[in-house]
Amino acid sequence: MAKKASISSRKAPKRAAAKAAARGNKKSLWTRKDLVGLDELSVEEILHILDTAESFKEVSTRSIKKVPALRGKVVALLFFEESTRTRMSFELAASRLSADTIVFTAKGSSVAKGETTLDTVRNVEAMGVDIFVVRHSQAGAPHMLARKIRGSIVNAGDGRHEHPTQALLDIFTIRQRLGRVEGLKVAIVGDIAHSRVARSNILGLKKLGAEVVVVGPPTLVPSAIRPMGCEISHSLDDVLGEVDVINMLRIQFERFATPGESRFPSVREYHRLYGMNGERLKRCKKNVLIMHPGPINRGLELTSEVADGPNSCILQQVTNGLAIRMAVLYLVSRGSK
Amino acid sequence: MAKKASISSRKAPKRAAAKAAARGNKKSLWTRKDLVGLDELSVEEILHILDTAESFKEVSTRSIKKVPALRGKVVALLFFEESTRTRMSFELAASRLSADTIVFTAKGSSVAKGETTLDTVRNVEAMGVDIFVVRHSQAGAPHMLARKIRGSIVNAGDGRHEHPTQALLDIFTIRQRLGRVEGLKVAIVGDIAHSRVARSNILGLKKLGAEVVVVGPPTLVPSAIRPMGCEISHSLDDVLGEVDVINMLRIQFERFATPGESRFPSVREYHRLYGMNGERLKRCKKNVLIMHPGPINRGLELTSEVADGPNSCILQQVTNGLAIRMAVLYLVSRGSK
Amino acid sequence: MAKKASISSRKAPKRAAAKAAARGNKKSLWTRKDLVGLDELSVEEILHILDTAESFKEVSTRSIKKVPALRGKVVALLFFEESTRTRMSFELAASRLSADTIVFTAKGSSVAKGETTLDTVRNVEAMGVDIFVVRHSQAGAPHMLARKIRGSIVNAGDGRHEHPTQALLDIFTIRQRLGRVEGLKVAIVGDIAHSRVARSNILGLKKLGAEVVVVGPPTLVPSAIRPMGCEISHSLDDVLGEVDVINMLRIQFERFATPGESRFPSVREYHRLYGMNGERLKRCKKNVLIMHPGPINRGLELTSEVADGPNSCILQQVTNGLAIRMAVLYLVSRGSK
Repeated sequence: MAKKASISSRKAPKRAAAKAAARGNKKSLWTRKDLVGLDELSVEEILHILDTAESFKEVSTRSIKKVPALRGKVVALLFFEESTRTRMSFELAASRLSADTIVFTAKGSSVAKGETTLDTVRNVEAMGVDIFVVRHSQAGAPHMLARKIRGSIVNAGDGRHEHPTQALLDIFTIRQRLGRVEGLKVAIVGDIAHSRVARSNILGLKKLGAEVVVVGPPTLVPSAIRPMGCEISHSLDDVLGEVDVINMLRIQFERFATPGESRFPSVREYHRLYGMNGERLKRCKKNVLIMHPGPINRGLELTSEVADGPNSCILQQVTNGLAIRMAVLYLVSRGSK
Repeated sequence: MAKKASISSRKAPKRAAAKAAARGNKKSLWTRKDLVGLDELSVEEILHILDTAESFKEVSTRSIKKVPALRGKVVALLFFEESTRTRMSFELAASRLSADTIVFTAKGSSVAKGETTLDTVRNVEAMGVDIFVVRHSQAGAPHMLARKIRGSIVNAGDGRHEHPTQALLDIFTIRQRLGRVEGLKVAIVGDIAHSRVARSNILGLKKLGAEVVVVGPPTLVPSAIRPMGCEISHSLDDVLGEVDVINMLRIQFERFATPGESRFPSVREYHRLYGMNGERLKRCKKNVLIMHPGPINRGLELTSEVADGPNSCILQQVTNGLAIRMAVLYLVSRGSK
Repeated sequence: MAKKASISSRKAPKRAAAKAAARGNKKSLWTRKDLVGLDELSVEEILHILDTAESFKEVSTRSIKKVPALRGKVVALLFFEESTRTRMSFELAASRLSADTIVFTAKGSSVAKGETTLDTVRNVEAMGVDIFVVRHSQAGAPHMLARKIRGSIVNAGDGRHEHPTQALLDIFTIRQRLGRVEGLKVAIVGDIAHSRVARSNILGLKKLGAEVVVVGPPTLVPSAIRPMGCEISHSLDDVLGEVDVINMLRIQFERFATPGESRFPSVREYHRLYGMNGERLKRCKKNVLIMHPGPINRGLELTSEVADGPNSCILQQVTNGLAIRMAVLYLVSRGSK
């Protein structure tokens, strides 16, 4: 499959590619049985996932969108926390690799009967499952499972901790649209404090040599983020002119719902201060890339003019998500158990 | 696959078949990328779906019930409104054509997070889905999507508007059992006002040259239906002797539940006036066909004597539903995008 | 597939094997279209399922875990009562046999619309389904369906009545671990009164020549169980030293929830009297087998020391469940319709 996957991809940042090439042996580039977070990965490993995804991207453009890479393997989608969109993306990625899939959602399941997460996954493994895509409300759950389970664990989002495939598809899309990652300046805007997407993006972008500025009201951008090597800004307008990428995080409506806990003055106020619109876009660099992990709230994080305009790559992110997830499922299935 | 599909089917009404044959080129018979309703379809197009279904019907009788017509394609079942039965029928039809399927239900999904229907479907399309089977509570939603989405949209029921595959399978079953549609008189009994099944049936039956009489209490049979070219009757007994087909709609229990809004005096009263039973069946034509879109309420719309008797074709309708849905998925997948 | 299936398996109890061998014709060993319970099965039929499972067990150890035995067949998983674990096991078993699967859960379905169970299953059958795996809250529902439906019915648990595949996988695991079933003494501990697992186990174990002692508080071990040929004990400590197998049933927490109906003094008290722990294990036979149908409540029915220790076969039971369900689906699909 991944014949074309190569760290010498034209688009890979030169320094990183050189480092990786120096290691020589392509086989040694991926040996992990799991993908639990970007924190653990080397630059070479991140690039190897991106390059493998590059070769799988082509599969999705074929009339028959299937390759036999995981035929006869079983991928279990274990969503202890619900997510239609991420579940569908992984499910389609697995089926495009010819794997069988089985879906488990916590609702109405043995979890409600008091079983521990580890026992649930051990049980599913005993049914002959090879790869476990796990979303869990508890930070660190995939890491614990990776240590205890012989099969492969892929983190599909754990608490406020990491969401590695989302960050990988974001970085893949940046590289595709802007030709590189190194040296770029990326703004991540919104609820940084509660966002695993922000955390994984910061980790990955920093490793690949990008600068990151996180933008939002002080209640949502804790100074504890500083040790990750980010700049912090409380004004979107201040950074508009100097960034190459603006990644708008989703406003979690539910946070507005509990008045005592509200971290924004109001939805309208949030949009006024941190929403992207046509007027703000004019003050950006010409080729600024507008990203959003979805689902978007039109008129809140961004206006339709921006979401559907030429600088937006929101749907491309979704398409690239398939390629990234195919690459990840493929690589971990070959990792040393 | 659909080699045997031909408008010259023995069973096709002669006039329509002649018209269609006159058009000569078989390839031009179906060019649409979507099926949103029967309102838009020509007689030739309706007959072409029925004839294609005829050729797929045979597949379901094989020991290995699969053909490779949609291998490598992905069919997404987007049920913004729930329906176990229709979802299963489409899912099996897609899998019988060797397509991969993915199910989306609104419950607990991004819809609950404030995303628009169009954004949801655009996202699913960005994942590489080819055909979207859409059920939606809003009339016209599939039509809007058909205009905005490049992939194929198949309407699986939109609000009170249309449910084209249900009407097609009803008409297919009539043709199968009575040898023709043209010239027949069909009674549709029950809650016409709220029924997309009634609306699509009336559109299709009239196009194919059948007469339609709608039967029910004045609260459920609005005079606004008259412009569709139907006769209206408030007495089932009055029409019993003159119809070839009686299509009993489902009583929506939920309408009885809200007393202020109730449109029937009582369930018992409804059955007395509009229910089919053995006594009424005796006053019908000998070969009268009794239909019901299911799920049936035994003892309400019809007694078990009628539902399970020789004039009933209720389970045949379900079986034919598979063939119709295979035909529709097959045809739209080849429509010009 | 089941080439290696043979009643002359090394591990089969000798008397039973001799009986079966005496019948000579291997083909006549399985003629049923359904599996509704162990009550109906002969010793030979039970052994034939176990032996067929033996041959399928090997498939699950392959790199490509698939055989084409049911290619083109459709298995519907009709869960009128929910069960994530059993549903997944059957779904994976079906897909390992290359069958297509379709899932139906009662929630939000036509059941809620007042349809009878029989009409629901007849409808699904009319869609071309071959095998129906049915879980239902009503005892006897699968038996009724087996009489009325032409397709195969597999009971996946009916009320408090039977759960045949669970008992078969338990017996299969006993035979695998201890080399035989005949002559063993098996303790079943816990809520016997409400347990279909207990009932099917007792039926199967007695037929294969094992002794069964049921253990629990008088409120949960009704004397009505005596005619099934079991010994009854209200003290786990009394039987510890004399049994070869201890099958711990799951405590149904929901029974503790309604205080008026509570059948145990308290969870702690239950564990003190009927829980397995390291201290009790020391008083057992050295090779005693500890079983549990899952999901387990660690610290209640058994401590982690026991659950994860060398005498436990809990995960092996899960693995064997796949092989048993593959065998059952395979056999009923060839039964005379």
